Amino acid sequence: MSDAGTIYIGEKPIMNYVLAVVRKINGENNGVTIRARGRAISKAVDVALITKERFVPSDIQEIRIETEKLQDKDGKPLNVSSISILLSRI
Amino acid sequence: MSDAGTIYIGEKPIMNYVLAVVRKINGENNGVTIRARGRAISKAVDVALITKERFVPSDIQEIRIETEKLQDKDGKPLNVSSISILLSRI
Repeated sequence: MSDAGTIYIGEKPIMNYVLAVVRKINGENNGVTIRARGRAISKAVDVALITKERFVPSDIQEIRIETEKLQDKDGKPLNVSSISILLSRI
Repeated sequence: MSDAGTIYIGEKPIMNYVLAVVRKINGENNGVTIRARGRAISKAVDVALITKERFVPSDIQEIRIETEKLQDKDGKPLNVSSISILLSRI
């Protein structure tokens, strides 16, 4: 799925992301990928479950976890876990 | 899978859990379920990926997320997200 159907979870309050996901999943894509890294992973899971249980009848189609190899500000390698949750409207 | 093959992720340092998972996955079960709630979800993902990439060749067989309905200390309902990651030795 392209980035057009992706919501990246960051530092904002959780309901900001839920609303973004609801808008996207009700749009033309019929589905959305919720992505997060590091400590935001827990929030991504909350966003997916709150959307599914309170706002849009939807299925969790796929969950992937992987290690992303980034660089810290001094250029040293930095391994960060990430999650992708694909949510589709029923 | 029964609780005999489950590691619950909590407040301890991450490598404690990695070592517990490595011991379990190399034991009689050939697999282990890593479970966590709330903010420990990110740590559970780290534990699964560190085990798989650095210690035991293994596959992530399944990832489930769900909302657990608990009670807070005053008996009020409390919804908490949880994750289960099933890791199997290759």
